[in-house]
Amino acid sequence: MHDIEMRSREQDLHHLTLSIEDAVRRGSIEQMHDEFEEWEAYDLATIYLTLNEAYRPRFMDALDTELLADMLSELEPRVEIEALYILSKDRAAQVLNRMDNDDLADLMGEMTDEVREYMLSIMEASERETVRELMNYGPETAGGIMTNRYVWFYAKYTVREAVEKVKHFADLTNDVQDLYVLNENKEVIGLTTYRDLVLASDTELIEHLMRENVVKVSADMDQEAVAHLFEQYDLVSIPVENTAGKLIGVVTFDDVLDVLREEADEDINKLAGTDKTIDFNTHFLTAAKRRLPWLIMLLFLGLLSGSIISIFQGTLSQVVALTFFMPMIAGMTGNTGTQSLAVVIRGLTPQNKMNGGAILRLLWRELRVGLTIGAVCGISVALVAGIWQSSFALGAVIGFSLILTIVIGTMAGTIIPVLLHKLKIDPAVASGPLITTLNDLFSLTVYFGTATLFISYLV
Amino acid sequence: MHDIEMRSREQDLHHLTLSIEDAVRRGSIEQMHDEFEEWEAYDLATIYLTLNEAYRPRFMDALDTELLADMLSELEPRVEIEALYILSKDRAAQVLNRMDNDDLADLMGEMTDEVREYMLSIMEASERETVRELMNYGPETAGGIMTNRYVWFYAKYTVREAVEKVKHFADLTNDVQDLYVLNENKEVIGLTTYRDLVLASDTELIEHLMRENVVKVSADMDQEAVAHLFEQYDLVSIPVENTAGKLIGVVTFDDVLDVLREEADEDINKLAGTDKTIDFNTHFLTAAKRRLPWLIMLLFLGLLSGSIISIFQGTLSQVVALTFFMPMIAGMTGNTGTQSLAVVIRGLTPQNKMNGGAILRLLWRELRVGLTIGAVCGISVALVAGIWQSSFALGAVIGFSLILTIVIGTMAGTIIPVLLHKLKIDPAVASGPLITTLNDLFSLTVYFGTATLFISYLV
Repeated sequence: MHDIEMRSREQDLHHLTLSIEDAVRRGSIEQMHDEFEEWEAYDLATIYLTLNEAYRPRFMDALDTELLADMLSELEPRVEIEALYILSKDRAAQVLNRMDNDDLADLMGEMTDEVREYMLSIMEASERETVRELMNYGPETAGGIMTNRYVWFYAKYTVREAVEKVKHFADLTNDVQDLYVLNENKEVIGLTTYRDLVLASDTELIEHLMRENVVKVSADMDQEAVAHLFEQYDLVSIPVENTAGKLIGVVTFDDVLDVLREEADEDINKLAGTDKTIDFNTHFLTAAKRRLPWLIMLLFLGLLSGSIISIFQGTLSQVVALTFFMPMIAGMTGNTGTQSLAVVIRGLTPQNKMNGGAILRLLWRELRVGLTIGAVCGISVALVAGIWQSSFALGAVIGFSLILTIVIGTMAGTIIPVLLHKLKIDPAVASGPLITTLNDLFSLTVYFGTATLFISYLV
Repeated sequence: MHDIEMRSREQDLHHLTLSIEDAVRRGSIEQMHDEFEEWEAYDLATIYLTLNEAYRPRFMDALDTELLADMLSELEPRVEIEALYILSKDRAAQVLNRMDNDDLADLMGEMTDEVREYMLSIMEASERETVRELMNYGPETAGGIMTNRYVWFYAKYTVREAVEKVKHFADLTNDVQDLYVLNENKEVIGLTTYRDLVLASDTELIEHLMRENVVKVSADMDQEAVAHLFEQYDLVSIPVENTAGKLIGVVTFDDVLDVLREEADEDINKLAGTDKTIDFNTHFLTAAKRRLPWLIMLLFLGLLSGSIISIFQGTLSQVVALTFFMPMIAGMTGNTGTQSLAVVIRGLTPQNKMNGGAILRLLWRELRVGLTIGAVCGISVALVAGIWQSSFALGAVIGFSLILTIVIGTMAGTIIPVLLHKLKIDPAVASGPLITTLNDLFSLTVYFGTATLFISYLV
């Protein structure tokens, strides 16, 4: 069913694309204006990308300014900037004035200085100021993703007055259902919705409809923490206030969906040591270039592991069988380390600022996890190795080393990311491959160290 | 600012908890009813959890049925079921009738058969039927997360008639802003919102307000694909239809936020080979038990690597320096494999059903990525190893092996997850640790095989 449903939508889009090309050729594209109104911005963006470049300007001419602004927001920044450049100066100005300010501020961040100054210069003064202000906030904060296209009332408004205000500003506001109630200091004191307005009688006061106790955030709050509040409270929007408590913008749920995906991508990059900008369509040379810096660093760390082995060359040449268990010891340490890292990365969110007590509890938990896992694996492998190599002493050395290295791996996978987080170092540094490679170093040192200590029993 | 904001909310909650305990002791808890109305369900759930167990029943008695139902939905399933058990039979029935049907169906899935039958038996017949139907859909499909608390009109309604209908059913509907327009066959033909109703005049027809071309899904569509549509189209809700095209429910954005987090967690589990149910609060024995099955499997795979080395014991004893480069070769193969895996896991979504062409393109891309990375790393390491060990031949063998194993690692990290995906095997099997450990096996075989082939130049 899903396939059929979506396929028919794709077919409809394909037909529409053909009609557009035909209409442009016949010079009758303007007549399709009403038909375009029926489509979603995302669909029109899809059409824009499939259209022959020569047809794009006329297609954009036939769209309402608002729909065109929405469509452009669905394109990749590079394509969007190109499209804005194709438009006439007047039309570009209209579109820029109408775009979501938060999207526009992000887009401006991707432009060269000259393009940005040109775009800002053609905008209305008030819109320009708003965008300039938004660009001052970090792109990953509430301020960076907020919009100023919200609706607000005073608590003393009647429903009729509120409806009049909503109608008056209809063209300037977005279609988010939340409406804010402010006091004279522009502080948010309540929240109401279009649904409340529909259900209430005309003479009722907004202050009787509104919910108090609105969840608010400050402009510098991390976007991941904002997204978390949306999840907890099932919000569709959240008001953003400045340090004085004044309402300065609203974050809406559509931006939050993007944030959740971005943050999940970040976590995955940390684990895999890869770059989130690599997808199925990335060119192979670009993909290789993005993956190489990490790998070259890990290559030299790997050689460092080799030099540790070379230190223990004497031990190794006396008991060659020690080599057989190297991959197992190193692998197990890496694997337990990565597991611990995954738990920590998922748990270390901006709203979860771990204090000393919480860190100690986590370390103590992971220590006991490491000891438990180490004991089970160490004893199993001691038996297998002892029987395989017919040497109880060798089995004991390997089992004991494994317990020790698993505990070390667990602790390294926990301490390193927590430490980097506390030191405010980019946590991407604590990637899975780094932990794995460091654990190689630790585990080989422990393994051969233990073996050298008990060499007299092994030979 | 953020800390202060949230801390003051926490302080307010703390005060409220104290007042509740005090009121319960003085028998005046009912008087707090209006105060509770001002709080979000999530906050009340937080209070419920902090309250002494003895105070919980009276606290729940003082809540409106609707608010109580919302609050219970915010609790963990286990706690939620316990809470429903504490309630009187009549109150429990009211709450169950009022809960979101999709949440309730999920909850019933967590109950023992007897508890479920009891809960179903006390519900209204119509609600019971709806929940039973919902339980037939897979929990990770559109049908499994849809609700039936939506509002619909016919296209010929005037705005006034629509508003009357909305007011009449206000208690039964949720506060999502989307309103659906149906034809006589109950097929969705349009979409309108409370905002549209507020902005339009009373006599306007719904068919003139509504947007056509509504994005719809079938009940069996995977929840991740549904979430993707929400992102693409910036939706707050999406209608779900049965095979005949009839509207049978609506998925709302709050469920989608949960889906996005679940799916991200799944991807992370695949990379780290850990269990999503491990967080900072999991007991150490539970955490160890959840991590061990994987590790034990990997332990034996690691021993298999050891037995490969033992096959090449002859080569190894002739050129002990070969051992020094083992960790580097195995590590690099594992790391490139994990990077490829991460790209594939993020790209393999339900809506991205890869066909043969796409798979071949991906493999061809990754092959070239592997060759490029392999060439750069292989040549670097050949020089370093040749100089370190003063043997050009050894450098050449190590460099050549590294190129080969990196290509193999890249391909394994790509082919294995794609293959499992095609074979519809639980993709969790293609975890990072598994790829890493398999790559250990491949890389050691290639490395020692190459060295054995060229042993005459090395000795």
